[in-house]
Amino acid sequence: MDFSLTPREQDLQDRTRTFIRDVVLPYEKDKRQSPHGPSDALRRELNALAQRAGLLAPQCDPHWGGLGLSHRERAIVFEEAGYSLLGPIALHCMAPDEGNMHMLEAVASEAHKQRWLKPLAAGDIRSCFAMTEQAPGAGSDPSAMTTTAVADGDHFVINGEKWLITGANGAGLMIIMARTMIDGQDRGATMFMCDLPAKGIVVDRTIDTIEESMTGGHCVVRFENLRVHRDDVLGEVGRGFRYAQVRLAPARLTHCMRWLGAARRAHDIAVDYANRRKAFGKTLIEHEGVGFQLADNLIDLHLSRLAIWHCAWVLDQGRDARTESSIAKVAVSEALFRIADRCVQVLGGMGVTGDTLVERIFREIRAFRIYDGPSEVHRWSLARGLAVKA
Amino acid sequence: MDFSLTPREQDLQDRTRTFIRDVVLPYEKDKRQSPHGPSDALRRELNALAQRAGLLAPQCDPHWGGLGLSHRERAIVFEEAGYSLLGPIALHCMAPDEGNMHMLEAVASEAHKQRWLKPLAAGDIRSCFAMTEQAPGAGSDPSAMTTTAVADGDHFVINGEKWLITGANGAGLMIIMARTMIDGQDRGATMFMCDLPAKGIVVDRTIDTIEESMTGGHCVVRFENLRVHRDDVLGEVGRGFRYAQVRLAPARLTHCMRWLGAARRAHDIAVDYANRRKAFGKTLIEHEGVGFQLADNLIDLHLSRLAIWHCAWVLDQGRDARTESSIAKVAVSEALFRIADRCVQVLGGMGVTGDTLVERIFREIRAFRIYDGPSEVHRWSLARGLAVKA
Amino acid sequence: MDFSLTPREQDLQDRTRTFIRDVVLPYEKDKRQSPHGPSDALRRELNALAQRAGLLAPQCDPHWGGLGLSHRERAIVFEEAGYSLLGPIALHCMAPDEGNMHMLEAVASEAHKQRWLKPLAAGDIRSCFAMTEQAPGAGSDPSAMTTTAVADGDHFVINGEKWLITGANGAGLMIIMARTMIDGQDRGATMFMCDLPAKGIVVDRTIDTIEESMTGGHCVVRFENLRVHRDDVLGEVGRGFRYAQVRLAPARLTHCMRWLGAARRAHDIAVDYANRRKAFGKTLIEHEGVGFQLADNLIDLHLSRLAIWHCAWVLDQGRDARTESSIAKVAVSEALFRIADRCVQVLGGMGVTGDTLVERIFREIRAFRIYDGPSEVHRWSLARGLAVKA
Amino acid sequence: MDFSLTPREQDLQDRTRTFIRDVVLPYEKDKRQSPHGPSDALRRELNALAQRAGLLAPQCDPHWGGLGLSHRERAIVFEEAGYSLLGPIALHCMAPDEGNMHMLEAVASEAHKQRWLKPLAAGDIRSCFAMTEQAPGAGSDPSAMTTTAVADGDHFVINGEKWLITGANGAGLMIIMARTMIDGQDRGATMFMCDLPAKGIVVDRTIDTIEESMTGGHCVVRFENLRVHRDDVLGEVGRGFRYAQVRLAPARLTHCMRWLGAARRAHDIAVDYANRRKAFGKTLIEHEGVGFQLADNLIDLHLSRLAIWHCAWVLDQGRDARTESSIAKVAVSEALFRIADRCVQVLGGMGVTGDTLVERIFREIRAFRIYDGPSEVHRWSLARGLAVKA
Repeated sequence: MDFSLTPREQDLQDRTRTFIRDVVLPYEKDKRQSPHGPSDALRRELNALAQRAGLLAPQCDPHWGGLGLSHRERAIVFEEAGYSLLGPIALHCMAPDEGNMHMLEAVASEAHKQRWLKPLAAGDIRSCFAMTEQAPGAGSDPSAMTTTAVADGDHFVINGEKWLITGANGAGLMIIMARTMIDGQDRGATMFMCDLPAKGIVVDRTIDTIEESMTGGHCVVRFENLRVHRDDVLGEVGRGFRYAQVRLAPARLTHCMRWLGAARRAHDIAVDYANRRKAFGKTLIEHEGVGFQLADNLIDLHLSRLAIWHCAWVLDQGRDARTESSIAKVAVSEALFRIADRCVQVLGGMGVTGDTLVERIFREIRAFRIYDGPSEVHRWSLARGLAVKA
Repeated sequence: MDFSLTPREQDLQDRTRTFIRDVVLPYEKDKRQSPHGPSDALRRELNALAQRAGLLAPQCDPHWGGLGLSHRERAIVFEEAGYSLLGPIALHCMAPDEGNMHMLEAVASEAHKQRWLKPLAAGDIRSCFAMTEQAPGAGSDPSAMTTTAVADGDHFVINGEKWLITGANGAGLMIIMARTMIDGQDRGATMFMCDLPAKGIVVDRTIDTIEESMTGGHCVVRFENLRVHRDDVLGEVGRGFRYAQVRLAPARLTHCMRWLGAARRAHDIAVDYANRRKAFGKTLIEHEGVGFQLADNLIDLHLSRLAIWHCAWVLDQGRDARTESSIAKVAVSEALFRIADRCVQVLGGMGVTGDTLVERIFREIRAFRIYDGPSEVHRWSLARGLAVKA
Repeated sequence: MDFSLTPREQDLQDRTRTFIRDVVLPYEKDKRQSPHGPSDALRRELNALAQRAGLLAPQCDPHWGGLGLSHRERAIVFEEAGYSLLGPIALHCMAPDEGNMHMLEAVASEAHKQRWLKPLAAGDIRSCFAMTEQAPGAGSDPSAMTTTAVADGDHFVINGEKWLITGANGAGLMIIMARTMIDGQDRGATMFMCDLPAKGIVVDRTIDTIEESMTGGHCVVRFENLRVHRDDVLGEVGRGFRYAQVRLAPARLTHCMRWLGAARRAHDIAVDYANRRKAFGKTLIEHEGVGFQLADNLIDLHLSRLAIWHCAWVLDQGRDARTESSIAKVAVSEALFRIADRCVQVLGGMGVTGDTLVERIFREIRAFRIYDGPSEVHRWSLARGLAVKA
Repeated sequence: MDFSLTPREQDLQDRTRTFIRDVVLPYEKDKRQSPHGPSDALRRELNALAQRAGLLAPQCDPHWGGLGLSHRERAIVFEEAGYSLLGPIALHCMAPDEGNMHMLEAVASEAHKQRWLKPLAAGDIRSCFAMTEQAPGAGSDPSAMTTTAVADGDHFVINGEKWLITGANGAGLMIIMARTMIDGQDRGATMFMCDLPAKGIVVDRTIDTIEESMTGGHCVVRFENLRVHRDDVLGEVGRGFRYAQVRLAPARLTHCMRWLGAARRAHDIAVDYANRRKAFGKTLIEHEGVGFQLADNLIDLHLSRLAIWHCAWVLDQGRDARTESSIAKVAVSEALFRIADRCVQVLGGMGVTGDTLVERIFREIRAFRIYDGPSEVHRWSLARGLAVKA
């Protein structure tokens, strides 16, 4: 085992850190941000800067304009990007685009890649992934999916409603998951590719959420007899859940990476504050009641990073990382939340205001404990792995 | 010991519960609310309804139009009021007004009561309490106060900046705490009464905060040679911290009461959801991973209520309740936060959206762990009480 | 609601506290104690002292020599008794005798009371309660009971094995729970009374356990064709589980009461140590890292006491207290464990030695989180209470 | 970064695992164990078996009969050894011997190595390390040391009392830390080597402790005019604390390694039990309330291992690992305690008995949170590292 960075990893870390500090941080107060995320105009401006810095869509293959990062390299770069909540937007390695690009590289046909991955990787369009449904549909348990795609000649006709579809507003591509009926038979879940806007796709509303970092917000989307040609099926019919697995394990790990950077940012702000603010005759950090919280932050940051690196390494070996990514998701999301919560507390009154970024990071990371599978689903899955098969 | 409610307590509980359910809940989606709190128009409308129901400013003496509630009766009524985030606004028992009325009843002169308590209790005006300052001023450690009031003939001239002054926007009364200089001598902290708006008081901005339930928001206030007549000193010069104590112990307990109601609301929403939402073949509540969280909510709600009732009883005995109110503040704020956090988790994706009230209650209660003294200050105070005096 | 003690409660508290301090504490280093509990000789000596102080078996009706304490009075007295691990032995209000006496008073016939409750209340004999079995028998789920009682003329013939039977060694009475077969039909669980020693009852061994406070230890007991006359059935055939409920809710609450006293003892030792031991230039208690832990102890002690008092009050109303006693069992056992754990930590190296009582109290209270239903069973039961009945 | 094992690490892991499983586990019920640890006869028998297996004192240089393991290799081997509480005794890599050998290799003269390290590495003798004192002496704060060594011609005369001196009973070597006075001047702390038994060293008693795994127990040792020749000073006069640092950082990490193995053992026992024991119609592990606890164990085991590996890697780079070893000590000791505590809980009644090893592992690991610096000292040290130097 070896915990040193390769020269390339070291270089990527340096370059990303510098780019975030010098180029992205000054944009943090840019007005083109709303509770439903940074605007597309802001995103495009940042993407152009990232491209100039050679850091755009770094997870993609160089063929598509990226850097072809390994999972471990992503761990390095995405953590640095996450240090600013605008960083992953700038580098175009934010959810859901990052996961979508990863999946398309892995399972799309060459024609689909040319048509959709190419502009996506270039930041010319954004994408969204329409899987989740409200009760009684597919939430943590995707098998409850109610959206249907019924074969009709060369097309599929899709009806249903999706919920919490991140980035749907303004996206150029939607990947739709639907239960597929052919000749009256349930053929399982299939993924469909669809340009946006499209006749038959209605964005009902953008949902207010506790976090506000994703361009396009989180939307309620309705399909009204949407017709998709069978050529636009991603991969094969009935393999939707398999492809979702391809997408999910790494996607959940890249969430860990980005938010690790955000938590580090909150920690740095809290350490700085605790070194300056005085109470009862000494700086806050000299109070053990504060200093111990910051010490616990150090511990949580360190162990989170190790869990991410390890899982990234497993993925780089081409091995199944379901157990490791479930462990990482639970451990990292809960550790980062503790960090953000402590930072709020250390800042006192300041911590519950928008005067520092800590309050917002706290809210973002609260959502992370739900996104890509709440802790309970991962614990359930880990427990099942320990049960003796009957 | 006896845990039963008196007939009067039972009646107050029933009436408040009915009023909240039938009258206040329908207002919850009223548009006259913003991130800086419900508008004054909405507040006045709700106050009128509460008055009609005989529930306005119930903590005040009947002489001022209230119900003269004991602390234990407040525990009952405020919890019910808190079940809606608009409830305490409606009953006019919200911070900071509630604490200010309590303090004025206890320490103001008859003339001051006629001039300020009377319209305040009637809901004709709102009030604010200007004590806290940003670093390096008075935060958790009030002795660091930098705002000064310099005697000048019959007046005091006040200069300085206050921070997180709740409700300053639109208030009719400000109670100002300032370090008092008379003839070049520091005479300690004094409280001053001042009508708003006033020449010399500038509300610089309203701070964005994680919660949004208080009318008038949380403001940055600047004093520029504000002149206050010596007749408008509250009580006596130099006794500001003593009066703050009169205000703080009960005020921190009424926070506990109101937010207990809010946490109960979140819990009810989560229980309802967990009984309806299905995953993996059964309702969520049948999953122990969810059911145990709701069981822990029950425990936290119950123990929080007992801690509040006990402290209210101590206050009703006329005894010093500093230890009990510190215990209650730490225990209740942390327990209610755990409840709100679990409710978010139980709701999954729904929990991080504004589609239910749970997300907002989560944010409100996060602030509660800071307001009126962060947990650390109370733990420090409790520990000091255990130390042998040298 | 009212949290004051009645004069009788105050008097009981004073007398018990004095008795424990002056009479029982000096016995704590008595050599007649082993990992399997204090000896019967020591117990009898202490019982005689308690009787002289008018404090023997205080939970029993005066008719049987006790004080006829209400549940709230038990809360006061048992906490004081628990301040010494020998206290409940001395007062003869320790498990399992205390629960057995309670059940016999509630459900035994007058003849059975004369024969068994009378000498039991006087401390002339001890008793044990043989219900629990090892896998695959009756543990947390009593319905899995494997011990059988088969009717044979005027007798029942009992066969099976019981496990963790507290106090079996040296007891004069065993109450046996067994699945009852009459004419080949399963008639449910029945309780049988049996003098000890008895032909057909073999104590296989005394199990080593993490705690060591119960006279007679925890035993493995085997029934080999034990014959019990049908007159010795407690109450009626087939009502074993119902009687067990009569026993369990109060029994689990009296555990809370006694161990609350033990935790208070540990806390007092830790506070005393932290006030004397110096490190890095000040006393330990002046270090927030220590002081905050002791503050948390205060909070946990206070809320535990309130939960106990409240549940005792519900029992005194003659109401079903299953919910309240489950809440109390989980909340109190886990709070007291946190207290004991913190005390160990505050004492540092001293805390893991037998040089103070803290190490032993830590072990005792660890067992309490299991005894009379592990937390998980109570959380499960509380969650079930929240589920909508189909 | 790379998490794969080298072929040598893999081989060491396999061999140690096999040795523990086949050779050591059968000794676990050997009667030559007491609350004060395994006897020396048992230790010697196990050492001989380890030597035959080529695994004795593996941390030592081959020159002294060991395997010259790197810190990372120790992480692998010591975890496997720790799987049995007798494993580290067998491999002779248990505290305090392991730390003493490490320190002697690093700082002793060649002559001292020949005289003491050689027989120590061979298991011919055991050693102890006499530093800690009771209040008001040197505990967590070593600067409070009260034991003195006064120069007297060619000798030092040592007086004082040491406390919790592990393994003193039956050891052949004692390393003594004492404040050194030469010509009336305090020359700082010095380490002295001393054969045992020695005139002037009295083992007053063996302290009862919560754990029982160390040969020779934990003793109170008194120095009565012990005369040590100046040639027996370890290294140089006045450098005692520096050498203690050499010893402590790795020693605290090897504690983490060994107890990680013990926690894994407890986890395996709990998983096995939860797969067999049924309650309420299914196996325990199928209950989420149990399964989630075991899932959390997986997470804690994994992250603990990563923290250990990382710190071992830092040590292997020859870098100062004070921060990393403090992080590891806090994180690992607390994680392993949570694991052991959950295992007790999962086992229910069985968990608090000596019928499985879980109860004992729980007690051992409780002590680990204190040994080699309680968590509070490490948090304090980490916080200090975050404070801006004035």
